[in-house]
Amino acid sequence: MSLFETYDDDNIFAKIIRGEIPSVKLYETDSVLSFMDAFPQSPGHCLVIHKQSTATNLFDVPTDALAEIITTTQKIAAAVKDSLKPDGIRIMQFNGAPAGQTVFHLHFHIIPMYTEQSIGKHATGGPADSEKLEELATKIRSNLKQN
Amino acid sequence: MSLFETYDDDNIFAKIIRGEIPSVKLYETDSVLSFMDAFPQSPGHCLVIHKQSTATNLFDVPTDALAEIITTTQKIAAAVKDSLKPDGIRIMQFNGAPAGQTVFHLHFHIIPMYTEQSIGKHATGGPADSEKLEELATKIRSNLKQN
Repeated sequence: MSLFETYDDDNIFAKIIRGEIPSVKLYETDSVLSFMDAFPQSPGHCLVIHKQSTATNLFDVPTDALAEIITTTQKIAAAVKDSLKPDGIRIMQFNGAPAGQTVFHLHFHIIPMYTEQSIGKHATGGPADSEKLEELATKIRSNLKQN
Repeated sequence: MSLFETYDDDNIFAKIIRGEIPSVKLYETDSVLSFMDAFPQSPGHCLVIHKQSTATNLFDVPTDALAEIITTTQKIAAAVKDSLKPDGIRIMQFNGAPAGQTVFHLHFHIIPMYTEQSIGKHATGGPADSEKLEELATKIRSNLKQN
């Protein structure tokens, strides 16, 4: 059952953490990392992951790491709100392929919602233009509250 | 902008917390409450809220209350997984009406996903049969881990 995936050290987020493949980073500490989703559902779609925990999903993550992820998600989402001024923001976390999970390293989605446009289906719209991602990331970073 | 709603003491979740309207409860402590969504998107759809915090959304909740909510969400989702054996589980949290938020008391959705059925659009499928909700809740409660 997909809710019990074994952690794969070569999953794409593990490679991003190790710096083996590039990502447009928003925020990083020793324990957490936030970066732009390369296949965004809407402009400003970004992710928050834990760097130390090798949890595949919500069911194998220690509570302290989970708390770090959600408070980081709150911090990044506030910066997305202040910088991009969407009409709403969805926080989503998928467990198992049938729920929409495509990378089996626990991650939280921050998805800005804009009333004038419907969101795309994840990972089917193709990768975003990297210059556009960097431009959005610059705006978000400039609105990140310290601490 | 809907991301800056004023907290309304008469919102439906405030009334549930005060016991003024009924709900099918799964788990309750002095600080958190989990109960079945009365307008479920799928069988077993339930919610987690904080009882003390009067946050409307992710942006006005203290980090300690947020951490309590997410670790409770993890606990309840595990019981949903073990009891109903869905193929996946989505965790969702909506900020602002354009994101799908309908009650302006911060809440996290736990939505079991079943490969053989698509999920309903929230709050449009009509209320669930209360006997059916109670039957699902009984299964979930019996799989709640202590602590």
